[in-house]
Formats: sequence, C-alpha cells, structure tokens
Amino acid sequence: MRIACWQAACEPGVPRMLDRLRQAAASAAAGGAELLITPEMSVGGYPLGRDSMAAAAGPADGTACRAVEGIARAADIAIVHGWPETAGAALHNSVRLVDRNGSGLAAYRKTHLYRPAEPHFTPGGDGVVQARLGALKVGLLICYDVEFPEAVRAHALAGTDLLVVPTALMTPWEFVARTLVPARAFESQLYVAYTNWIGVNEGIRFCGLTTVAAPDGGLTTVDEPGERLLFADVDPAVIAAARATTTYLPDRRPELYGPVTAH
Amino acid sequence: MRIACWQAACEPGVPRMLDRLRQAAASAAAGGAELLITPEMSVGGYPLGRDSMAAAAGPADGTACRAVEGIARAADIAIVHGWPETAGAALHNSVRLVDRNGSGLAAYRKTHLYRPAEPHFTPGGDGVVQARLGALKVGLLICYDVEFPEAVRAHALAGTDLLVVPTALMTPWEFVARTLVPARAFESQLYVAYTNWIGVNEGIRFCGLTTVAAPDGGLTTVDEPGERLLFADVDPAVIAAARATTTYLPDRRPELYGPVTAH
Repeated sequence: MRIACWQAACEPGVPRMLDRLRQAAASAAAGGAELLITPEMSVGGYPLGRDSMAAAAGPADGTACRAVEGIARAADIAIVHGWPETAGAALHNSVRLVDRNGSGLAAYRKTHLYRPAEPHFTPGGDGVVQARLGALKVGLLICYDVEFPEAVRAHALAGTDLLVVPTALMTPWEFVARTLVPARAFESQLYVAYTNWIGVNEGIRFCGLTTVAAPDGGLTTVDEPGERLLFADVDPAVIAAARATTTYLPDRRPELYGPVTAH
Repeated sequence: MRIACWQAACEPGVPRMLDRLRQAAASAAAGGAELLITPEMSVGGYPLGRDSMAAAAGPADGTACRAVEGIARAADIAIVHGWPETAGAALHNSVRLVDRNGSGLAAYRKTHLYRPAEPHFTPGGDGVVQARLGALKVGLLICYDVEFPEAVRAHALAGTDLLVVPTALMTPWEFVARTLVPARAFESQLYVAYTNWIGVNEGIRFCGLTTVAAPDGGLTTVDEPGERLLFADVDPAVIAAARATTTYLPDRRPELYGPVTAH
C-alpha cells in the first residue's frame, strides 16, 4: 500500500488547517497514496492556542472530525488526523483513522503525555488501538508514545503491520526521528510512519524529519526544512522477510521481563 | 570513570588470546582506564572451534577465568571477559566482571541466544546481573541480548549506570551498532559499552563499530576496520542530566505493557 505523510507547516487555526488538509489529501491521492498521515493535532495545529482549541475540540463525531470525514470522501483517500478529543470533562490528545468513505475506523488517545507541553490533557487508557485498512493492520500512536519501546512492542505482538505516529517533534530532539524511530521499526519488525510538523509555532521550532522506517532498516526521510508530502510503499513481504531473517519476536524471553510491567 | 573497549582482531585460540589480552590490559591501564571491556567469548575467540572450546570451557573458578584474574591483577585494571561456562551438563555463553584485584564481582549467562550460531549453548535464566564498580553500578549483557529493548529496560529500572555488552556482531548487521545501541542508551538513559571483534573467523566477518553510547545521544565509535582500544568516560552527571531533562522512566505506563511480559 502506498502511503503519504504530510510534513505540514504549522500555521494554527482550524479553517486554514482544514483547507490545507483538503489540498494535501488531493495531492496525496493524485500521487497514488491510499492513506494520508498528518502531524499531531493536525486539525488545528500544535500547540493549540485557546481559540483554536475551542474550535477544534469535540468528540469523535463532532464538527472537526466530520469535516475531515468529508475531506477523505472528496479525495477518496483514508486519513489519519489528530484533534483535541472531549470525553465528559476530560480532554485527550487523540488521533483517528478515517477510511476513504469517511467512516471512522479507530481512535486513539495519547497514553504517554509529554509533560512540559501537555498539562491540559488526560492520558488515554488503551495502549493498542488498531484497525484493518486493506491488507494492513494499522496501529496508532502519538509522538512521545513511540519513544517508549514497550508501546511499540505491544503493537508488534498484537499484529500491527504499519504503526502510524503523528508527531510534533521539536529541536533539539532530532535524535528521536533519526535513531529511535528507525530502531523501533527494526527491533519490532513493523513499519513506522512518523509524520512531523515543520516551522515555528508559539516559540516551538519543529524539526521535520518525517520518516517512514521499514523493518529491514530501510528509511525514507524528509531531510529538508520545508512542507512536503513524503510517499512510501508499505509492503507486507518486507515485514515477512525481516521476521524470517531475524526471529526477534519468538526469541524474546518474556518470563525475564517482569520488571518492565511492575508498578 | 574512564573505560576502554578492546576491539580485538578475532584470532582464535586460548593461549594467544590471553597473551593479547595481557597487552591490551596494560595499554588500557596506561591510558587511564579503570575497566577494560572485551568482545564476546574473548578468552578463546568467537565462534570457538572444538579445540579452543575445550581449552576455554570451565566454571567461573576454572583455569581460563583464573588466567584473566591474573591479568587484571598484573595490570591493575578491572576486566569484563567472555568464556564458555560449564555448569553441570550445561554450557553457557557467559561474561564475567573481574575487579583490579582479580576478584570476580559478577557473572552473566547470555539469555537471548542467537540461534543460527549458538545451538550448543543453554540460555541463562537471570536477565539482570549487576555489580558495583567504583561509583558505578555495572550491568552485563551479551551481543543479541541488547537488541531486545526489554532486556535493557530491566537494567535501567534496576539502576544500571553502565551496561557492558561484549558482542560478536557480523556483517551485514551494522544497523545494530549504528542505530539500536545508541537508541538503547538514549531511551533507557544509561551508558552502553558495545565491544565487538574485527576480522574474519570461520567465515564470519565481524564489523567492528565498537561503540560507547551515552544517555544524551553522545557517541564514541570505532569507525575503522582495525584492532583498536576505544577510550571513553562514563559520567554519572550525564546520566542525571539526561534523566532530569527527559523523564522517560517515570513517564512509562507499565500498566499498559502487559503484552510485553505475556507468555
């Protein structure tokens, strides 16, 4: 399956972001992609100021999510987008997979909050959220989540083929995109599509480096500081070959990993 | 603490390896190192042919280990060395930390065997083996072990400052040294000293790339295909600063990691 990652310039505001998402979805579909992946909190920008937050926040069947559904239908492409999800009194940093017909297939609430920037969010309680899209089992994580190897391992053990990770990675943390993300794909033998902002918003300088990392160590990376659609092919045969060559998953010794889940 | 990693040419045979270890220990001590780290199965070479295996195999108080103790005392330096450890009918791929006085402080049996090359070994049953050396808590893993993030995480949670990893990494797996090892140090916020062979033995071409990876992303690597002593400083203040800047360990969500220990 061909995917496209939209490394978007961060210009906050819901109407403007949705307009630009519409254009990106059309370009991605024209380039042959069946799935468009966008950065963290893509409906309004990251971080969201008070006005944008109010305009973007809502449940998974709210106004902002409905708008993305319409964009997916119009462009005939599946989309992963982020938004501030309301659930009772709680506010979550969430992402959602919408198919080409505009149907919501899965929604995930960030479980590892990045404390310096996210005091207003409630962490999610479900570590592995997946949905089937064509031949692939697609999993969802957000930004800081992927820096925890356990979070990715849980996906691999649950059969995720393509782990979609909208992010808002800032300078000077380029190491995460250049080293941790490729390590995750290699060690857990799945694809990781890590899609970042570029530009500056509220004093945060995003570092781009949007990357699709393959389980065989293959990398496709945006190594220039501009807005860009990154296309990549996700091939289940590459996953199968990696798992046949190095048998990481069956070679694990889970009976020795008790400290990892102690709490 | 200053350490030295001996990226040694793999020339199998116990007497010859011990002679060369004696020279390396003297050079490391002369360079100011308090700990010398050697490759996997360093007493005889990796892999060991039948004659070398017979000469090197024994318990932790056997002939080969006694010889290393003498080398440590003579050079006044602590040493981590590998050897084939016998325990009843079992044969383990083991490493051992000997202090400058020649006292064995800890011994570890490889828990993740690399099946294509290691059918004759029995896997160890203890994932976290540590000892205090000066101001540092030193942990021991071997080669393939470090490719499993859970194995390193268990060390971090148990307080390991310096994870010593004798290895026998072969071409074309350079990705492990270049990406996985730095990722381990960064994500679990400890030092990893990954010490490899160079040269060819029994058709295996070792890829060198001996690396000391720091928790702040800092790297010291041998990027040339020869025998070399790599010196590096292990500074507890760097660990403390990394853990203060990014709070990976307390930000973990162990209650969500159940699948990682399921078996």
